Amino acid sequence: MTLYPREECGVFGVFNHPEAANLTYLGLYALQHRGQESAGIAVTDGEKVSSYKQLGLVSEIFDEKILNRLTGKSAVGHVRYSTAGSNNLANAQPITVDYKHGTLAAVHNGNLVNAQSLRFELEQRGAIFQSTADTEVIIHLMAHSSATDEMSVIKSALQEIKGAYSLLMLTPDALYAAKDPRGFRPLCIGRLPGDAYAMSSESCAFDIINCEYQFSVDPGEVVRFDKNGIHRERFAPVKETTLCVFEYIYYARPDSIIFEHDVYSIRKELGKQLARECPVEADLVVPVPDSSLPAAIGYAHESGIPLEMGLIRNHYVGRTFIEPKQQIRDFGAKVKYNPVAGSIKGKRAVVVDDSIVRGTTGKKIIHMLQNAGAREIHMRISCPPWKYPCYFGINTPEAEELIANQKSIEEIARHLEVDTLGYLSLKGLMDIVPNYDEGYCKACFDMKYPVSPGKDTIKRFLKKA
Amino acid sequence: MTLYPREECGVFGVFNHPEAANLTYLGLYALQHRGQESAGIAVTDGEKVSSYKQLGLVSEIFDEKILNRLTGKSAVGHVRYSTAGSNNLANAQPITVDYKHGTLAAVHNGNLVNAQSLRFELEQRGAIFQSTADTEVIIHLMAHSSATDEMSVIKSALQEIKGAYSLLMLTPDALYAAKDPRGFRPLCIGRLPGDAYAMSSESCAFDIINCEYQFSVDPGEVVRFDKNGIHRERFAPVKETTLCVFEYIYYARPDSIIFEHDVYSIRKELGKQLARECPVEADLVVPVPDSSLPAAIGYAHESGIPLEMGLIRNHYVGRTFIEPKQQIRDFGAKVKYNPVAGSIKGKRAVVVDDSIVRGTTGKKIIHMLQNAGAREIHMRISCPPWKYPCYFGINTPEAEELIANQKSIEEIARHLEVDTLGYLSLKGLMDIVPNYDEGYCKACFDMKYPVSPGKDTIKRFLKKA
Amino acid sequence: MTLYPREECGVFGVFNHPEAANLTYLGLYALQHRGQESAGIAVTDGEKVSSYKQLGLVSEIFDEKILNRLTGKSAVGHVRYSTAGSNNLANAQPITVDYKHGTLAAVHNGNLVNAQSLRFELEQRGAIFQSTADTEVIIHLMAHSSATDEMSVIKSALQEIKGAYSLLMLTPDALYAAKDPRGFRPLCIGRLPGDAYAMSSESCAFDIINCEYQFSVDPGEVVRFDKNGIHRERFAPVKETTLCVFEYIYYARPDSIIFEHDVYSIRKELGKQLARECPVEADLVVPVPDSSLPAAIGYAHESGIPLEMGLIRNHYVGRTFIEPKQQIRDFGAKVKYNPVAGSIKGKRAVVVDDSIVRGTTGKKIIHMLQNAGAREIHMRISCPPWKYPCYFGINTPEAEELIANQKSIEEIARHLEVDTLGYLSLKGLMDIVPNYDEGYCKACFDMKYPVSPGKDTIKRFLKKA
Amino acid sequence: MTLYPREECGVFGVFNHPEAANLTYLGLYALQHRGQESAGIAVTDGEKVSSYKQLGLVSEIFDEKILNRLTGKSAVGHVRYSTAGSNNLANAQPITVDYKHGTLAAVHNGNLVNAQSLRFELEQRGAIFQSTADTEVIIHLMAHSSATDEMSVIKSALQEIKGAYSLLMLTPDALYAAKDPRGFRPLCIGRLPGDAYAMSSESCAFDIINCEYQFSVDPGEVVRFDKNGIHRERFAPVKETTLCVFEYIYYARPDSIIFEHDVYSIRKELGKQLARECPVEADLVVPVPDSSLPAAIGYAHESGIPLEMGLIRNHYVGRTFIEPKQQIRDFGAKVKYNPVAGSIKGKRAVVVDDSIVRGTTGKKIIHMLQNAGAREIHMRISCPPWKYPCYFGINTPEAEELIANQKSIEEIARHLEVDTLGYLSLKGLMDIVPNYDEGYCKACFDMKYPVSPGKDTIKRFLKKA
Repeated sequence: MTLYPREECGVFGVFNHPEAANLTYLGLYALQHRGQESAGIAVTDGEKVSSYKQLGLVSEIFDEKILNRLTGKSAVGHVRYSTAGSNNLANAQPITVDYKHGTLAAVHNGNLVNAQSLRFELEQRGAIFQSTADTEVIIHLMAHSSATDEMSVIKSALQEIKGAYSLLMLTPDALYAAKDPRGFRPLCIGRLPGDAYAMSSESCAFDIINCEYQFSVDPGEVVRFDKNGIHRERFAPVKETTLCVFEYIYYARPDSIIFEHDVYSIRKELGKQLARECPVEADLVVPVPDSSLPAAIGYAHESGIPLEMGLIRNHYVGRTFIEPKQQIRDFGAKVKYNPVAGSIKGKRAVVVDDSIVRGTTGKKIIHMLQNAGAREIHMRISCPPWKYPCYFGINTPEAEELIANQKSIEEIARHLEVDTLGYLSLKGLMDIVPNYDEGYCKACFDMKYPVSPGKDTIKRFLKKA
Repeated sequence: MTLYPREECGVFGVFNHPEAANLTYLGLYALQHRGQESAGIAVTDGEKVSSYKQLGLVSEIFDEKILNRLTGKSAVGHVRYSTAGSNNLANAQPITVDYKHGTLAAVHNGNLVNAQSLRFELEQRGAIFQSTADTEVIIHLMAHSSATDEMSVIKSALQEIKGAYSLLMLTPDALYAAKDPRGFRPLCIGRLPGDAYAMSSESCAFDIINCEYQFSVDPGEVVRFDKNGIHRERFAPVKETTLCVFEYIYYARPDSIIFEHDVYSIRKELGKQLARECPVEADLVVPVPDSSLPAAIGYAHESGIPLEMGLIRNHYVGRTFIEPKQQIRDFGAKVKYNPVAGSIKGKRAVVVDDSIVRGTTGKKIIHMLQNAGAREIHMRISCPPWKYPCYFGINTPEAEELIANQKSIEEIARHLEVDTLGYLSLKGLMDIVPNYDEGYCKACFDMKYPVSPGKDTIKRFLKKA
Repeated sequence: MTLYPREECGVFGVFNHPEAANLTYLGLYALQHRGQESAGIAVTDGEKVSSYKQLGLVSEIFDEKILNRLTGKSAVGHVRYSTAGSNNLANAQPITVDYKHGTLAAVHNGNLVNAQSLRFELEQRGAIFQSTADTEVIIHLMAHSSATDEMSVIKSALQEIKGAYSLLMLTPDALYAAKDPRGFRPLCIGRLPGDAYAMSSESCAFDIINCEYQFSVDPGEVVRFDKNGIHRERFAPVKETTLCVFEYIYYARPDSIIFEHDVYSIRKELGKQLARECPVEADLVVPVPDSSLPAAIGYAHESGIPLEMGLIRNHYVGRTFIEPKQQIRDFGAKVKYNPVAGSIKGKRAVVVDDSIVRGTTGKKIIHMLQNAGAREIHMRISCPPWKYPCYFGINTPEAEELIANQKSIEEIARHLEVDTLGYLSLKGLMDIVPNYDEGYCKACFDMKYPVSPGKDTIKRFLKKA
Repeated sequence: MTLYPREECGVFGVFNHPEAANLTYLGLYALQHRGQESAGIAVTDGEKVSSYKQLGLVSEIFDEKILNRLTGKSAVGHVRYSTAGSNNLANAQPITVDYKHGTLAAVHNGNLVNAQSLRFELEQRGAIFQSTADTEVIIHLMAHSSATDEMSVIKSALQEIKGAYSLLMLTPDALYAAKDPRGFRPLCIGRLPGDAYAMSSESCAFDIINCEYQFSVDPGEVVRFDKNGIHRERFAPVKETTLCVFEYIYYARPDSIIFEHDVYSIRKELGKQLARECPVEADLVVPVPDSSLPAAIGYAHESGIPLEMGLIRNHYVGRTFIEPKQQIRDFGAKVKYNPVAGSIKGKRAVVVDDSIVRGTTGKKIIHMLQNAGAREIHMRISCPPWKYPCYFGINTPEAEELIANQKSIEEIARHLEVDTLGYLSLKGLMDIVPNYDEGYCKACFDMKYPVSPGKDTIKRFLKKA
């Protein structure tokens, strides 16, 4: 009960649609890349709230029988991934509770930086915690709020929490969507036929259910959906927003619109910029599939070096693979990737990836390409060196495990055994991402955490090790 | 979130044994008859508490892999059954929480009569409820207690609750066992080799792990197990105790010692008393297997009428059976029971059962025996007419569904289509059960609820319909 | 592919009923005691044959979805148990084949003694074997028969096989039931509403589906069910029949009628005879539940010593139990049985069981009763010493593992640590079982195998070790 | 038993390696794209053959426990896909049998054209068929062969069968790999450390286990692996070979070497040739992921039109998806694909796919791209119109369901609602694929079946409908 997992999540909701649970299930399926560990849906028929959550993938957890039991016109759902070891059903969401204002189901994407001290205070006031999810902290704040109407209760709770959160709350007669005042994580609203609405971490989940994108929830805003329609309200003054730049670089699906901009195009532009910053004479550009394909296309377009699929990814990957005792070189990477010798042999390859975390898999991939006959390997990364952990909703290892925190670019290149290694510059990155009035959180590159994580937070994450 | 299930449960715990989780699993398996819907174990290694709970039978839920993950020297476990429809993982136990005094896992057998009003009060004070289990109410009371040491915290919580409870609470360095001041439900303590102890709803669970029975927890007592050994303390003044007489009649296993007395012998004596009160000229005594076998043996011994296994029970019963569309007479009873025509045909049978609830299965069984050629059927029940619901830990239907609440004995006899029907008298029952200074709860027969269930409780149970 | 398991099985079939698969499933469920390892059903809609089989219990394998796919008006089903280690899906039945006379599904209870040499001959003629089931041998014989009509094909195959078999064969337009010329194993026919029939190893399976018992298939008879009704034909001359006496002693369910006689009554008479042959002064008769209860009742009635349930059996037994490392005395027996100390303590007990195989569990049970305080233990077995393995359809260990093959009664008594040990005499047994013109196979007691198992058979079974 | 499924399969084997089963499991995992319905492995320890097969994906079927039971140094494995409805465990492979020459396990990729008449003949000679797999026919032929040594037995069987087959046969002391005289399907041999070998449908499966590619089995050749090493023998005279051209176009993995040539490079060249044959003025080239990516890259390189990922594929696809009742446009394609509006909007897109079968999914994809704002859509297919079913191991629908069999290119274009539609010419295709002395089977395009399928075969496949 005292491990505080770092989480990655996706949220989805539907208001006032006769097939709320089924649409939520499809939405979560489209958001599966944001969390593969557990999933859950809570639905209300206007009186009570029913829910179902389990460990596993969306398509494994829900079947027709379970969806049929989740009757009602409004629903919220969640997919979650957390650091290994804490794959605990107790932390799966939605969290559904009875409290003084009635019944509530909540889902949340993000991480609070003052969760630890809020937990402490709440415990002093009599709160009991059945999970380590930040969502439970938020609900407790609502339960201890002295406000009387639901909207005020929610606003008062949100005013006490700090950090990143995009959250949905479902009650028997309303659904609330809220985003933290700095807007770290995406959350957007769409329109369904009839007076129905959907809410999603990413717009790609609207596409699967024919839902029309309407707008992105504003930082510091609560949107209420009820029988009177849609009502938007601020709970915090306008601040400098700090969107997570990593959603653009890697996390979001390329077919999503995030913070009103098209992810695929930005990723391709990052690849172009990378080509300008780190050119190299080579025969082909090889993406590490699937996520770095847009950046690799950009690099290829800009450099004029032809794109080739030098690595194939096997998508039938199961949970675990049993390695033979007579160990196989680069086994971990091999069950997922295989080089295409025919396109690689004797060639000088620019391998484009969207990030290097620990450098473990990258090193194996490079080794495999070298064995397949690549003459030279030039590694290009479509973001700056990733030096600092995220405390706002991306699941990262601690600083000492991040290779760029521990080694210089030259040292990393030697470690990976590549001929050259180039990262996109931070300036190059910021030139490409859409020029908002507001800014970005890019603390993973420059350690400028927009909200101080505080010693407590850093410690609580360290505890998990 | 607003269905309040009526529960039956069993609890088991181990203190200071290197294989705490494994012993708890075996103990729960021996208590499986007290709850077949969900099971769970929480274990502590002295620092953190780990737990696992699922819907299903003990032998299905736990395997070597899961038990191996539950490392630590002290554990508590739970099996649970509740009214159909609420088979909800959220209500499975142990409930494990973090609160101001640390980490805690609790399991509970019983039902509180003031849970509803305590919930209301606690919600006003900021509590959030994630289940409808009474255990959660108790933990909230502890969390809101102003006491400072753990023992006082527990005692102050117990002083606020009313009703039936036998509970175990596990913290990283201690284990507490407590029983309500009237001692409705059994809870006993055993000794394991080394300075280790076990706690169990019934002593039969000690036998499977070679644990020596020590004593039954006193009503109104908290027993603390810690590194200093065992420490017993009262939290409530001595009151008239009201042991659940139904544990002797039906609920406990015959090989258990309940409230210091041997269940099998009492059940056999009930059968003898029944023979004295309701004699009949007949050819054979037929038990409804397996639970009424001891009473039937008693009846046979006393009456001199030979015992015959006129009904066979199929023990390979699964969850559900698919009835053919061309319906089969008495299908529900037939998948479980089959008459032995050879022993029944042309005979006058005394069918002994330990209770009649709705009369549905009983009627089918009698119909099957008649079709098998029984010449006369004399039904004998080894307890008085069951007229009133239990609010203290036995899962019963509401009053209007209890056939004896709605019909006279003559009407029931007509309904069942038996030649004669005889119930044990309440006086006869009380003459047999051990003559304590304290008394019994026999409200299911005489409506004298030792603790007033209150309108709220009755309503909350009715809500479930 | 060369392990020849010794099998125990049950067969069930339905002809011309709109819910053939569902009735077969219920029939197999009632026969579950005859085999708990695998189960299967094949059904025909008059054109093709569909089937489903799996490892597991009937209630686990079949659900509504699977039964709905098994459409057709005639069906055959099978439950199977075999020696540990060979729990192989390949040996599960029905075996469904295409061959020169069309499509066929077959199920079989028994063991052939010339299977090995027939396999060899058939292999020489080009047969391939995908299982070690004798059923496959029979089908191959049919496929190599030069007869032209189906009935003659079946008869010619049956004339080549020796040993024990009760079998059912399903084709798109007929169903055949056949029993070996000596009639080792039971097989009976029942009538369902409409022109429908059922076939079953035991009559208890008719009761669950309201099917009326008609007759037992004669030894050496094939019964054909088709659109013209029922047609009985001999395929072998009348021989001395040798019914398996062990069906009466232990194997069949007590509520079945086997070889036209009521099992329960015979078992009780065996207990009475045992009391006459091996009297003892004692305080109570304790059955080893559940199977020896009828014999114990008989012993109690005859001796006048009261019956007491001194042992309780836990029916929630799962597949395996994880024993703690700090081993528990008599663990294997303890997960299944528990003594009722209250009825045993200080008493002289006659423990009645229906057989002793290896003596392992028996010894543990006695040990448990002694620990529970029994003053004397007198073991009484309701059959003669079991000295020789069965080659005709009961799964037994080899001779050297049968304790009565290796030790005298006195030695067994010492091994079990009982005060006295008494077995029913062979003469006593034969006086009780119904006095047919025909006789019994009692080779497990007297080594007089009605059909010589032959060196090959003995060897093939020994191979499994 | 009378549905003859059209199959797609992959085979893998290992000879003389201590971890034969584990390597085979990894090999099958790499061949998963060749069959996702069932998988199985048979292994020999030099005496007996053990096997395990189930419905499902390789990573779901096998776990450490099952692999540990499959002990031995040589193994064969199989993955299989067949027409919907026949997903029957009976057809899963390996098929393991005992027959006159001992024990044998066989796996097979391909389809025989004379299976039906061979079955008929074999049935007349006494054979029984437990599956509809062609493999069983081959084994029966071996069992009926009058040859005496194993190699001659195999050769005589192969001389009787016609059609496509790449097969592996395992006996306790040898492993055989054989390919039909025309060499329809790939089968190659690799070398493992020690005197160990592997055999695989495709070389990509060698990469995952660090196995070195040695040679492709010759058409009409049997390769025997035994304690004396490797021994190659012809069983049929050299004929014109007819390699399946579709392996290059679509079926094989791009990282495989098939018929000694690199698949990825050929696929890219097909895209280039397509660009030369069917040029169009457009803004971007959009692959239908993942399989058509190499051809799209080729098209882009040749045409100079930039490649863009206009479609994203969701790889978390489960078995089935529950469509809401209020149906969603293009639902079937939407759970798998989503357009990237940002890259498509207002653009003229060349959509490159590697084949059109029924045109159903293609139409939905185009519709989705149009809704995402594509201004023009030019569909380009990297093979000729697919007009005729395959009878040699690719699972295709019947002729009347193939859109190119029923409609002209213009009609297809209208049906798909594309602006233009272009197919690669047959001549263009043949110019690109490696210029062997031998030729190709391209009957799916030109109806010139190298081996006449015969009326029987066509009928047997039609039966399935």
